[in-house]
Amino acid sequence: MSRSPHSVLVVGSVALDTVTTPAGTVDDGLGGSASFFGLAAVKYAPVRMVAVAGADFPEEHLSLFRRHGLDIGGLQLVEGRTFRWAGVYSQDMNERETLRTELNVFEGFHPELPDGYAQSGCLFLANIDPTLQLEVLESMQAPKIVALDTMNYWISSKRDELLKVLERVDLFLINDSEARLLTGQENVLRAAEGIRMMGPSTVVVKRGEYGALARTENGWFSLPAYPVEGLKDPTGAGDSFAGGLLGYLAHTGGRVDEANLRLGLAHGAAVASFVVEEFSVGGLLDLSRAAIQERVRTLWEMSRFDPTLEGTR
Amino acid sequence: MSRSPHSVLVVGSVALDTVTTPAGTVDDGLGGSASFFGLAAVKYAPVRMVAVAGADFPEEHLSLFRRHGLDIGGLQLVEGRTFRWAGVYSQDMNERETLRTELNVFEGFHPELPDGYAQSGCLFLANIDPTLQLEVLESMQAPKIVALDTMNYWISSKRDELLKVLERVDLFLINDSEARLLTGQENVLRAAEGIRMMGPSTVVVKRGEYGALARTENGWFSLPAYPVEGLKDPTGAGDSFAGGLLGYLAHTGGRVDEANLRLGLAHGAAVASFVVEEFSVGGLLDLSRAAIQERVRTLWEMSRFDPTLEGTR
Repeated sequence: MSRSPHSVLVVGSVALDTVTTPAGTVDDGLGGSASFFGLAAVKYAPVRMVAVAGADFPEEHLSLFRRHGLDIGGLQLVEGRTFRWAGVYSQDMNERETLRTELNVFEGFHPELPDGYAQSGCLFLANIDPTLQLEVLESMQAPKIVALDTMNYWISSKRDELLKVLERVDLFLINDSEARLLTGQENVLRAAEGIRMMGPSTVVVKRGEYGALARTENGWFSLPAYPVEGLKDPTGAGDSFAGGLLGYLAHTGGRVDEANLRLGLAHGAAVASFVVEEFSVGGLLDLSRAAIQERVRTLWEMSRFDPTLEGTR
Repeated sequence: MSRSPHSVLVVGSVALDTVTTPAGTVDDGLGGSASFFGLAAVKYAPVRMVAVAGADFPEEHLSLFRRHGLDIGGLQLVEGRTFRWAGVYSQDMNERETLRTELNVFEGFHPELPDGYAQSGCLFLANIDPTLQLEVLESMQAPKIVALDTMNYWISSKRDELLKVLERVDLFLINDSEARLLTGQENVLRAAEGIRMMGPSTVVVKRGEYGALARTENGWFSLPAYPVEGLKDPTGAGDSFAGGLLGYLAHTGGRVDEANLRLGLAHGAAVASFVVEEFSVGGLLDLSRAAIQERVRTLWEMSRFDPTLEGTR
């Protein structure tokens, strides 16, 4: 097979989420890291999805994936029930409580890469068992960019395996509390620097309504969150952020120089802002690149200032 | 008296603080809103201070104020003990517990403006009783900029008086929880917009390690915090932020157009970053304008990106 430098491969979960927020409730909505990531990244580049769903997974979600151009040749459909998660968010939506986790078919998930997937230019290892992440990573043929997500559970229970994956990734996306847990550093700046020493050249700390803070080879980059006033459901914000970022980077040929990386992060933040304005994947469905670019421009407008102004008065 | 457009008048507190943080303890260190604000703003412009201290206030602090060029003609020295505050910060320094508050001479504080003070171009009404803030404001002669700070206590106990002051100020500095309390809005963006309807053309929400978010006539401006890795004592960060901001605005002739305001906020953030690196006012004592400017430049460097890059590849 020929290489596909502009393609993005995601390995993660497909789920049916029951989510309650102060804005309402959705039962068995389409969710999972691969769903949010894929529907975001496909705005920019071809996306291949490796995940698993059960026999109960609604045909309408499969056709939704296809209609949006996702290559779901790696989405295994197996006997049993689809992964289900149920949770409720706090009044300010900064915290959430898990009411129920049914791993179902996700428990026995073993990623298999269809022909050609190993040649994808960009790889996103969404939040799954680090042993599986490493396995996928080892089967890839020299991807240009490898990005990684994880969660507290794996940091605590499979630390050694996670560290092996970390050694080999370019971009690591994490939140404040995970960064602290991984490094034992209370100061998030020191934590991000400590994680860079573990392998990834770029560490992106996701901070929800406060935006993102990235530690790159060049230093710090801070990006505000897009000012969303009608927050409905924060589920999937992180994965769609990653989808906008990786999609943009794949679309621009896998360049990870500082300037392109920064703009990619702004695309990630812009895409995530649409996701949290709707339940489930609703915010991604009729989303145009032009609408994303408009929010990227707003993020630029709201963060720029001119340090040379003082001398010119 | 002639007008002094480049002078800044601060009305606030002078205190002796006993502070414990994970980095150590200081007993009876120089503190209070007028001290932090004044020592910050005086880097940029002449500063007049109106406050009160007791007979026990150390002569060395008075000479420190004078040595740094502060006009302390409005600092009343009266019988009794100086305002004292004692507090302890949490491990991550995002929260603090007040152990002791002794108002002492501050309880009977009545601001008096020496000759010429009423002609100051900029006024900072630090966190004191809104009744006193209004009284000072009414005695001013057409200041170019009036900025205001307050706290939860006044929002709850003197709401009507505070609203009267708010109607007449240009800049209001507040933190997330105060903005929510004042407006009843859970969403901080809506809260900031709601506060603008109460009077101030600019509302600055201070977010500690996450920086600041300002709502201006033009829209949103988001500024990261300077990445401080050796945080020692957050006390005074907000007042020195205000001091850097107002000092910069006074120094540049009281211009509050969007561009100058943004750069002023960056100066505020830069000055505050030095303050939290030392106990008490230590971070302000040997601080040069050049050192502040270097951090302003770093804040610029860490927040800039180019939204037009995508089209040029």
